[in-house]
Amino acid sequence: MKNFEFHNPTRIVFGAETVGRLDQLIPAQARVLILYGGASAEKTGTLAEVRQALGQRSVQEFGGIEPNPSYETLMRAVQLVRAEQLDFLLAVGGGSVIDGTKFVAAAALYDGEPWEIAEQGGANIRQALPIGTVLTLPATGSEMNSGAVVTRKATQAKLPFRNALLYPRFSVLDPSKTFTLPAKQIANGLVDAYVHTIEQYLTYPVQAHVQDRFAEGLLQTLIEIAPPAVATPDDYATRANLMWTATLALNGLIGAGVPQDWATHMIGHELTALYDIDHARTLALVLPALLDVQRDSKRAKLLQYAARVWDIRSGSEDERITAAIASTRHFFEGLGIPTRLSAYGLGPDAVEAVLRQLQAHGMTALGEHRDIDLARSRRILQAAL
Amino acid sequence: MKNFEFHNPTRIVFGAETVGRLDQLIPAQARVLILYGGASAEKTGTLAEVRQALGQRSVQEFGGIEPNPSYETLMRAVQLVRAEQLDFLLAVGGGSVIDGTKFVAAAALYDGEPWEIAEQGGANIRQALPIGTVLTLPATGSEMNSGAVVTRKATQAKLPFRNALLYPRFSVLDPSKTFTLPAKQIANGLVDAYVHTIEQYLTYPVQAHVQDRFAEGLLQTLIEIAPPAVATPDDYATRANLMWTATLALNGLIGAGVPQDWATHMIGHELTALYDIDHARTLALVLPALLDVQRDSKRAKLLQYAARVWDIRSGSEDERITAAIASTRHFFEGLGIPTRLSAYGLGPDAVEAVLRQLQAHGMTALGEHRDIDLARSRRILQAAL
Repeated sequence: MKNFEFHNPTRIVFGAETVGRLDQLIPAQARVLILYGGASAEKTGTLAEVRQALGQRSVQEFGGIEPNPSYETLMRAVQLVRAEQLDFLLAVGGGSVIDGTKFVAAAALYDGEPWEIAEQGGANIRQALPIGTVLTLPATGSEMNSGAVVTRKATQAKLPFRNALLYPRFSVLDPSKTFTLPAKQIANGLVDAYVHTIEQYLTYPVQAHVQDRFAEGLLQTLIEIAPPAVATPDDYATRANLMWTATLALNGLIGAGVPQDWATHMIGHELTALYDIDHARTLALVLPALLDVQRDSKRAKLLQYAARVWDIRSGSEDERITAAIASTRHFFEGLGIPTRLSAYGLGPDAVEAVLRQLQAHGMTALGEHRDIDLARSRRILQAAL
Repeated sequence: MKNFEFHNPTRIVFGAETVGRLDQLIPAQARVLILYGGASAEKTGTLAEVRQALGQRSVQEFGGIEPNPSYETLMRAVQLVRAEQLDFLLAVGGGSVIDGTKFVAAAALYDGEPWEIAEQGGANIRQALPIGTVLTLPATGSEMNSGAVVTRKATQAKLPFRNALLYPRFSVLDPSKTFTLPAKQIANGLVDAYVHTIEQYLTYPVQAHVQDRFAEGLLQTLIEIAPPAVATPDDYATRANLMWTATLALNGLIGAGVPQDWATHMIGHELTALYDIDHARTLALVLPALLDVQRDSKRAKLLQYAARVWDIRSGSEDERITAAIASTRHFFEGLGIPTRLSAYGLGPDAVEAVLRQLQAHGMTALGEHRDIDLARSRRILQAAL
């Protein structure tokens, strides 16, 4: 096990009928900005519930934060925060809204051009407004971590940043708020949480028994709950497991003390930036191909993954690895999520376009061994055609 | 899954050579009291390392906190804290030292007779001094939770208390600090962490897939690492897994959103108070007997435990349950920890003595169903003879 620090101060308020707790969670004197995405927050009644819980507080609202939240949109929120001297940000939505809120929280107090925050990965954040969240879409884990991703439309750049100042003070997780989500979003959320777990698990062994068992438990849970999660929108228990699993997949716990990969994410980000493919869907495109190309350096963990997660225990090592990768691909496809670029009409030209973006963003040494250079990224993308 | 709140603000600093981090973790102006137990903290050099890390800070020391820390001892520390106006408590030791430090942290600022804190389970704590810990004995999880147990020698009362103000600000976990521990302490630690996990897992199902998988992962890890943990004191990787597993077994995570038992602990506390048997050893006495007596109400989870933790999948339900309980007993006995009261020379008289203590302390409705009354506690204790 590697040395590590783990400190996650976010308070989780989990369960049905918990939105009303906002009244105790946000200071009575706070000047609140509610940030949200599209019309669904209003339509489902969640915004009304939030407004009611905030009572007599001074509240403003900022809607229209898009999937893959853009610098261009978020800077309008930053101007509002500054103009109105707002001092508490409440994100109501999924990972995009929460990520965008994190950018606003840091940018509003940043002394300089806020895009530098993304360019420097958040290392230059010195202060941030406090954030709370009401999660309506389980997937990214942003509700209990300090990271975010922001996109600059003008340059098609999608960059991650993180800083301990960006942990939400609290996150309200009410699984019943997911009942109205389209099945596609649930499928995306399952894949997103699955790949988050894989990025921190499927590397090389460092005798971190607990982290391995926890990661395997998350993967097994996602596989178990996937069918009812998609088929039965109002199955509270299933949605509760999905929500808590997605949070635990990226709250720092399973990644503490172990090597991490994240190459699938970095390559996937470019696919989203270039072709506007949903984040989770880009992960499903890249991961199976990456596991195949990296099967030698990931051999020991791939065999463990095959045995413990998929119960694949017979055949040669390479047969077991191939079967585990096929099971992974089948899991994604079974959720209606393609694992081939051709499903999006993309071919060899797209491979080269992604490589140019990776080069432009300095993504030339990815993965837990930093051995995924542009040549290897090309092999991975070609394997995903 | 039940509704829950999870908020654990303790910062974990984990790994070899991490004691030096104290200099950044404790405010430079702090007036520190180092609290510790016996002579080993000095002999192993840990105290010297701690003193060096604290540099020029004003530091006082209070040694002699005993296993099952006593009110009588701790009140002397309280007097020292008050007289010297100390404002930061640093526990260097295992669960007893940390528990004792939590009592001192609350008692020093308590307006009234501090024993009331134990009598009211901590609900009357309004403020507490900040605490940090340097963990030297993995077992109780006190380094990352808000609970503690304190004993009043005069009345043989051993009472738990908890309050969110008692989370350590940080805990330094250096697995190499455990190399010098006697094998008996390691065996105790393994059993302690195992039973902590069982108390939050082996109740009845509430469709909490993640919590179940995490608990099973902790149990599997403890079973895997037990032989090398005892046999090879300086096996860093094994000790690292033991340390992190014991912390995760009782930091609120696996218990969030699920029913909890704790009857084994409550009965065990009385055995410690009356006969001075090590805490973990009392758990090994009570648990197998309790599982047998409660096999009907715990049936579904006992079967899951049998299958997933012990790979017991054939035979009738009752055969599988019996085999799982036998495996549990065998695991404890294999660590040199008895599971029968007779091993301590205790017989039917002890059963009645424990029952009188349970009655005196109001422990007449224990377990996840509150159905362990004195009659059932008698059956459990008789089954442990």
